[in-house]
Amino acid sequence: MTPLTNSAINETNNTQRTVFFISDGTAITAEILGHAVLSQFPLTFVSYTLPFVTTEQRAEEIKQKIDSIYQSTHTRPLVFYSIISPSVRKIITQSTGFCQDIVQTLVAPIQKEVGLEPEPILNRTHGLSRQNLNQYDARIAAIEYTLAHDDGVSLRNLDQAQVILIGVSRCGKTPTSLYLAMQFGIQAANYPFTADDMDNLQLPVDLKPHIHKLFGLTISPERLAAIREERRENSRYASLRQCRIEIAEVEALFRKNKINYLNTTNYSVEEISAKVIDIMGLQRRMF
Amino acid sequence: MTPLTNSAINETNNTQRTVFFISDGTAITAEILGHAVLSQFPLTFVSYTLPFVTTEQRAEEIKQKIDSIYQSTHTRPLVFYSIISPSVRKIITQSTGFCQDIVQTLVAPIQKEVGLEPEPILNRTHGLSRQNLNQYDARIAAIEYTLAHDDGVSLRNLDQAQVILIGVSRCGKTPTSLYLAMQFGIQAANYPFTADDMDNLQLPVDLKPHIHKLFGLTISPERLAAIREERRENSRYASLRQCRIEIAEVEALFRKNKINYLNTTNYSVEEISAKVIDIMGLQRRMF
Repeated sequence: MTPLTNSAINETNNTQRTVFFISDGTAITAEILGHAVLSQFPLTFVSYTLPFVTTEQRAEEIKQKIDSIYQSTHTRPLVFYSIISPSVRKIITQSTGFCQDIVQTLVAPIQKEVGLEPEPILNRTHGLSRQNLNQYDARIAAIEYTLAHDDGVSLRNLDQAQVILIGVSRCGKTPTSLYLAMQFGIQAANYPFTADDMDNLQLPVDLKPHIHKLFGLTISPERLAAIREERRENSRYASLRQCRIEIAEVEALFRKNKINYLNTTNYSVEEISAKVIDIMGLQRRMF
Repeated sequence: MTPLTNSAINETNNTQRTVFFISDGTAITAEILGHAVLSQFPLTFVSYTLPFVTTEQRAEEIKQKIDSIYQSTHTRPLVFYSIISPSVRKIITQSTGFCQDIVQTLVAPIQKEVGLEPEPILNRTHGLSRQNLNQYDARIAAIEYTLAHDDGVSLRNLDQAQVILIGVSRCGKTPTSLYLAMQFGIQAANYPFTADDMDNLQLPVDLKPHIHKLFGLTISPERLAAIREERRENSRYASLRQCRIEIAEVEALFRKNKINYLNTTNYSVEEISAKVIDIMGLQRRMF
């Protein structure tokens, strides 16, 4: 069980708040939404994420922690929570924290609009049920496919890929492929161009039949050199000159073959993945 | 750009609603929260996810789509949105959809509580900034570490692992390791016990120094057999008998060595990962 201690607590000051993400499930939704909300305020946060809070006893422990932080800092901790059990929920809301129900806040207006009573179910967001088991298996299959087709390891079964990411070494192909598979159940292969390919760069024969599924990733030579330097210090591979040559060659290939591409320099894997889906018109499944 | 067409629209009936997830960023937060809310209602949904809505022109296209669905179904589409630009947002909220601002609904009460004006920034949740670049690089490094230490591929550098998942083939080690790395930046290695290990199963010598970092995954023999059957039909490997033997051996090993373990049969990778973090007391970073 996550221990309820944190040395940073004693350093609380005016621009720092303590925040709790509490859930009877994984607390992933509470964290994501809580961060989206809190990122709008010029504050720093000491945060506790407390998943699987399903018993009154556990809720009491957490309430005591919230109350003790209030007593020592004279500032109410912010609490983002999602708990189905009324008795467990009540213990949290009776704490001295400033408590916000992240899901229920939106359920009430939707209830009014659709004219139906909500039927709250535990672990509704990130749980497994008989209904979604097939979909879940498809997602696991996508992760396997993506691993088997990472870094050009296998060029077989590319007809089963929904997208094939191409680009130079270390431009973000692998994390993006895995995120596409993990978050969206997309079978994403990827293929790296190596330094040896760079003279008179052409599209590999194995990729030609799948040109409509190709998506190029590119990156600034400076960022690429910094990333490669981490891997192989002072190598030709990591030199800015080499990075410039490779990027220029690859971008020319993308343009010549009319392959959609994206400069990933300032984007996270979430953003790159969402853009790939959007530009390629892929189905965006949710898990 | 995601096309605004969907053949299922014409089949709309009383228990089916159209829902839009609209964002100026990846729309991942809108999707996750929207699904958490909608899963409480006994309805089926036809959904459109529309990320990167940053221009008035794109907003107008979407507004027209929402309005046309309302006109043909006489039912207001549900719209979960998060858009910073007032002019773009206004176009969406002037549609005939039932519009809910997923983040702002919670920002107002927090604003009052902390006594500070919000400073909304584009792509605040899943974007890259100079502030979080180091953290982002650490996350990418975790993904790399996890890939390099998947399936016992390398037993070197296990001292750098934060957790080492162990279990029989196909019990969920790889997807869980990758989720831990991707979502939480945790360096997760994993090691498979094979059928050859099963006679007098002992903890491999390479894992012994890291026993405090080991976490066992187990699964019901029936589910394991079904998963293995997908991979190798009618094999001894996939037989219920073999699955029973392996699971019994491995669970005995976990108990004998006092290794924490979890039965994954009814859990998603999100749930398994959150439980591993909770039980092992790992730091849960957010990205």
